[in-house]
Amino acid sequence: MSKSSNAFYAQSGGVTAVINASACGVIETARANKGKIGKVYAGKNGIIGALREELIDTSKESVKTIAGLKYTPSGAFGSCRYKLKSLQENRAEYERLIQVFKAHNIGYFFYNGGGDSADTCLKVSQLSKTVGYPIQAIHVPKTVDNDLPYTDCCPGFGSVAKYIAVSAREASYDVASMCETSTKVFVLEVMGRHAGWIAAAGGLIADAANDIPVVILFPEVAFKKKEFINEVKRKVKRYGYVTIVVSEGVRDYRGRFLADAGTTDAFGHAQLGGVAPVVANMIREATGYKYHWGVADYMQRAARHIASKTDVDQAYAVGKTAVEYALQGKNSVMVTINRKAASKYSWTTGEIALSKVANKEKMMPKSFISKNGFGITKKCREYLLPLIGGEDYPPFKDGMPVYTRIKGVMIPKKLSESFRV
Amino acid sequence: MSKSSNAFYAQSGGVTAVINASACGVIETARANKGKIGKVYAGKNGIIGALREELIDTSKESVKTIAGLKYTPSGAFGSCRYKLKSLQENRAEYERLIQVFKAHNIGYFFYNGGGDSADTCLKVSQLSKTVGYPIQAIHVPKTVDNDLPYTDCCPGFGSVAKYIAVSAREASYDVASMCETSTKVFVLEVMGRHAGWIAAAGGLIADAANDIPVVILFPEVAFKKKEFINEVKRKVKRYGYVTIVVSEGVRDYRGRFLADAGTTDAFGHAQLGGVAPVVANMIREATGYKYHWGVADYMQRAARHIASKTDVDQAYAVGKTAVEYALQGKNSVMVTINRKAASKYSWTTGEIALSKVANKEKMMPKSFISKNGFGITKKCREYLLPLIGGEDYPPFKDGMPVYTRIKGVMIPKKLSESFRV
Repeated sequence: MSKSSNAFYAQSGGVTAVINASACGVIETARANKGKIGKVYAGKNGIIGALREELIDTSKESVKTIAGLKYTPSGAFGSCRYKLKSLQENRAEYERLIQVFKAHNIGYFFYNGGGDSADTCLKVSQLSKTVGYPIQAIHVPKTVDNDLPYTDCCPGFGSVAKYIAVSAREASYDVASMCETSTKVFVLEVMGRHAGWIAAAGGLIADAANDIPVVILFPEVAFKKKEFINEVKRKVKRYGYVTIVVSEGVRDYRGRFLADAGTTDAFGHAQLGGVAPVVANMIREATGYKYHWGVADYMQRAARHIASKTDVDQAYAVGKTAVEYALQGKNSVMVTINRKAASKYSWTTGEIALSKVANKEKMMPKSFISKNGFGITKKCREYLLPLIGGEDYPPFKDGMPVYTRIKGVMIPKKLSESFRV
Repeated sequence: MSKSSNAFYAQSGGVTAVINASACGVIETARANKGKIGKVYAGKNGIIGALREELIDTSKESVKTIAGLKYTPSGAFGSCRYKLKSLQENRAEYERLIQVFKAHNIGYFFYNGGGDSADTCLKVSQLSKTVGYPIQAIHVPKTVDNDLPYTDCCPGFGSVAKYIAVSAREASYDVASMCETSTKVFVLEVMGRHAGWIAAAGGLIADAANDIPVVILFPEVAFKKKEFINEVKRKVKRYGYVTIVVSEGVRDYRGRFLADAGTTDAFGHAQLGGVAPVVANMIREATGYKYHWGVADYMQRAARHIASKTDVDQAYAVGKTAVEYALQGKNSVMVTINRKAASKYSWTTGEIALSKVANKEKMMPKSFISKNGFGITKKCREYLLPLIGGEDYPPFKDGMPVYTRIKGVMIPKKLSESFRV
C-alpha cells in the first residue's frame, strides 16, 4: 500500500466485553505509525458502513476516548449481522465496496469478528486477485463462542467464561445456603449454540477449596434425560443441592434443540425460547425439587465489569498485531493467540491463512469433557483457567462504570449514489 | 442478661451478597466485648438450627474466617424459609426454643432477615413476657427487596441494585451496537414480587453521560399492554433500541401476575415461570422487533463481586449495632439505617420497635415513579444513587473470587429429645 493509504476497521457479529479493546489496539497502533498508514475509518455498524459509505473518522476521537475503548464493552462503532455473498452471487456488493474504498483511499481492511466474518474478510482479501483492487485484509478474531480454529482461544471468550464461572460460583453459594428448606437446584443458561466452551466455564466453580456440585450440559453431548435426572438426584442426595450450567445449544439424540421442546403459550403460539426453564421444569416433574433458573443472555458477553485481564490484553494485542502485519505487507491472514508450552501460562500472537479459518468451527475436544458427559476434565480446567486470569476493572463514578462513547464524526460522503443494504 | 450469656445468631429467608457482612459485624463485635457477652452460636440453617439444637460454635472460626465473611455472599451458616406460628397456634415450637436457649445459656437473639423474619423476632422478643424466659431479641435487617419500613434502606438491596444497574447498562451498550441489523429490544427480569425497588435500579442506567432508553415495569403499576407497546415503539423509533427492566411481580389490572399469563408446555402443564419471555413474546407479536431476554435470578442477589461498598458497610454496621443495642439492654427492636439530611449522603444506624415493623411492606412511593409509570423520577434517582456507591471487590485468586467457608463446628447437643421441623 502507499504510505498514505487509509484503513477501514469494522466490528462484526455479536459484540463482546472486549471487542473495543481490539479497536483500541488497531487505532492506537495505526496512530503510532502515522508515517506508514493513513487514517483509520470505522464502518458505522460494521461492513454495512462501508457499503453505505458511512465511515466514522476515528482521527476525530481524542486520545482519551480511544484509550477508553479498552475498558468499554459492546461495539462502539456499531456491529451488524451481515455476511457478504460470494462474488458470483452478489457482484454489486463488491463493486460498491471497491467504489467506497477507492473514494476514500482505503488500502487496509481490518475485520473484527468470528467465523462468518472471517469468510467476509477472506473475500475482501481476494479483491486484488479477483477484481484488481489492491487491498490487504487482516482478520482480527473475536467471538465469545471461542470456536475459531487455529487460535488457542478467541478474544471475548475469556471474559464471558470468567463472568459465568464467577456468577455460577456465587449463585451456588446462594443455593447451598437455601437448600435445607427451599431451592435445591439452580439452572443457569449460557450462550453457545454449537460449541460448549462457555458452558465448560461452569466447571471452574468447583476447585480444591470449593466442593461445589455442578452438572454441565454441552451442545457436543446428546442430551439423555434419564442419565441427567439421575446425576441431578445423585448430587442433591450427596450435597443437598446442585448447580446446572446448560448451553443454549443442547440437543437431544435426534438433534432437536432442547429449548424447542414444545412449550406453547395459551394461544398455541410457539415456545418463548430459553432452555433453562425447560430443564428446570423437567427436574421439577421428575424429582419435585424446588428450583430457580437464570438466563445470562447479553449480560454474560457485556459484563466488562468482571472482564478477564488476560482477555483484555489479548483483545488489544490482536488489534495491534493486525496493524503490524498489514504494515509488513501481509494479506488474507487472521491473527491468532498462541499458547506457549510452559508450566506458567504465557502467550504470543501469530497468524494463520484466512482460507484455512473461514466457516470452520472448533468444538470442545472429547478429552475436555468428563466421561459421564456432565463435567470438564483436568485438561479442560488447565486450558480454561489462564484465560479468566486477572481482573481489569473499569473506572467507576457514583457507583456506576464509566464507559466511553465515541463522538462518531462521519467523513463526508464522496459518492453520489447511495447503496441499499 | 448475665455477663456470660451466649448469643444466638441466625440468617433467615432469601440470602444476599452482604448478609454475611452482618454476621461478621455481630460476631466481631461480640468478640470485642468478651467480658460482657458469651459466645455466638449460629443456627445451622436459620431458626431451624435452634429448633433442632444444631448450633454452630462461631468461636471455633478463626479471626480470618470471620473477617472473610465480610466479602462472602450467601448465608454462610445456612438460611431457611420458616416462619414461626403464633404462640397459640404452635406452643411446642416456643417451648422447644426455650429448652434449647436454656440448655445453652442463650440470652441474646440476633435474627438476620426481612419482614417475615421480623415477625419471628418479635415473637421471640416477647418470650420473657409471654412465658417468662429472659431473652433480648434484636432484628438485624436484610432483604434485597428493600421493603422493610422505618429504615431508609435494607442491607442487601444496594448490592443487587448495583448489579442490576451495571448489568443493564452493559447490556444496553451491547444492544445499541447490534440494533441496526439485529436485536432491538433487551428484556431483563429482576426480583421484586411486591415492591419495585430492584426494578427501579434499572433507571440508573441512563444519566447525563448515557442517554439510554429504558422502560421499567413495576409491580406497583398495573400493566397496560397498549401503553407499554407504544412506549417501546416510541423508544425504538427514537433510539433504535430499548432496554426493558421488568419486575417478576408485575401484574395486570386484575391483579394477575404477568408471568402467569397462560404459558403451558406441550403437555398442558402450567407455565415454567419467568415474566421476561412473556414480555419479550408480547413485543415480538406486536412489533416484530428482534429481542433478547435475560433473567438475573440468583445471580443478582449473590453478585458479591460487584457489591456496593455502602451496602457492605451498612450490612456490617447493622450487625455491629445489634450487639451494641443488646449490651445496652435493648429488646424487641430492629436496627435501622437512617439517612442524614445533607447534600452529601451520610447515614447512621438507629432503632425502631419491632412491633411496628413486622409484616409491613414498604412499596415504592408514587413520587419515585415517573408520570407515565415506566421510569423513575429525579427524587428516586437521588434516593438510589448513594446506595450503590463505591466498589468493594472480594479477593481473587487464579481469576476466581476467593470466598470464605466456615468450618461449622457444632456444639454438642445437650437435649435428649430431638425436634421435628
